[in-house]
Amino acid sequence: MIEKGVLYGVGVGPGDPELLTLKGARLISKAKLVAYPIDKEGRGLARKIAAPHIPQGAEELPVPIFKRRTGSTDLTAYDAAIAGISARLDAGDDVVFLCAGDPFFYGSFIHVFARLAGRHRVEVVPGVTSLTAAAARLKRPLGARDDVIKVLPGTLDEGRLRAELADAKSVMIIKVGRHFSRIRALLRDIGLDGQAAVVESATLENERIYPVNDVPDGAKPYFSAILIYSGAESW
Amino acid sequence: MIEKGVLYGVGVGPGDPELLTLKGARLISKAKLVAYPIDKEGRGLARKIAAPHIPQGAEELPVPIFKRRTGSTDLTAYDAAIAGISARLDAGDDVVFLCAGDPFFYGSFIHVFARLAGRHRVEVVPGVTSLTAAAARLKRPLGARDDVIKVLPGTLDEGRLRAELADAKSVMIIKVGRHFSRIRALLRDIGLDGQAAVVESATLENERIYPVNDVPDGAKPYFSAILIYSGAESW
Repeated sequence: MIEKGVLYGVGVGPGDPELLTLKGARLISKAKLVAYPIDKEGRGLARKIAAPHIPQGAEELPVPIFKRRTGSTDLTAYDAAIAGISARLDAGDDVVFLCAGDPFFYGSFIHVFARLAGRHRVEVVPGVTSLTAAAARLKRPLGARDDVIKVLPGTLDEGRLRAELADAKSVMIIKVGRHFSRIRALLRDIGLDGQAAVVESATLENERIYPVNDVPDGAKPYFSAILIYSGAESW
Repeated sequence: MIEKGVLYGVGVGPGDPELLTLKGARLISKAKLVAYPIDKEGRGLARKIAAPHIPQGAEELPVPIFKRRTGSTDLTAYDAAIAGISARLDAGDDVVFLCAGDPFFYGSFIHVFARLAGRHRVEVVPGVTSLTAAAARLKRPLGARDDVIKVLPGTLDEGRLRAELADAKSVMIIKVGRHFSRIRALLRDIGLDGQAAVVESATLENERIYPVNDVPDGAKPYFSAILIYSGAESW
């Protein structure tokens, strides 16, 4: 009887290849099968970050994770990729699945995990998140002592966002995109706009970090988060 | 004129020495001066985690960070340690300050940063936090899509805790300690106790993870966090 393989969900960190963990680097550098999410153009951030460690000759299994979001009629490529990983695990092969940031922190690995954890052994290797990477690059502490830290999707309605922002010391708002103008107006209304920065691609070579008030009216920064560091000055 | 040194705040991760980043390992392995917090017994978790990378012959600067909390009359040792680091930076030496987890995520480095960032160049290297490490060990995703993730100190009053727990997908309650009974009673009242685990020393050799309902009444787990994973089943 063949012993089944292990699916390793490896967080490769926020972007700087040096923010990969030693454990992640070890697992990737010994991998025979490397899986990772790709976008519609076939690009994968996690693969790019991990590239220096992927062995020559490793077999690669790109997973078109975006297909999952296009409705139930067009899941074939995604389903086929998941089935392919499952078959390799059944055959006794280990699979290293690369995840930008941390596997369980808003990563597409969560969907893969939900599909495969029921019948396969899964090990998760945590990674540096965009949350602490953004704070490090901004040089703003997130929280100490009795501070509350939150991560809020920008898709929440205004009432919820307003309530959640009260009293939190540091807040990362993710999935800002087309909600930017609405969110900035809210931050201005409650007086937090002066302690909020837009963070794009923290620690990557195309990193951009700037005050939310520097964004021209009407502009819509697409791929970005907002980090609110309210009161970091008081430490 | 001597160019001043750089203070590197390096997150060494939650406990497993392999969860150090490549960047952290590189900086530590080249360090001539290594600083780190110590407790009253002279022990330092961050130093223990980083030990395999500290060069033989590196000079060590332990910082009795606990002294900071004993009131204004007994800060001498802490103040002296900070002044010592500052003097070495002035003399042109770089100092690598080791931080368990991430430097800006409830770390004692935040206090050091507050004291030294005004007059010295500081670079922060983010690390894996206990938040994502605990989720990885529990094999419970923290958040996807429109989920809210929070970190709440157990010192918050019951009304605030109750309000903050509503609608959050995953919550890490830190600094549980003597508040354990009160917090568990609250979790039972709102029906979250069945999806909550005590996490002690995640990824360390003395790691212990168990359901909050396994803790006998009256027991007070001291150094621990509670991770609430409400609804992870639905992914």
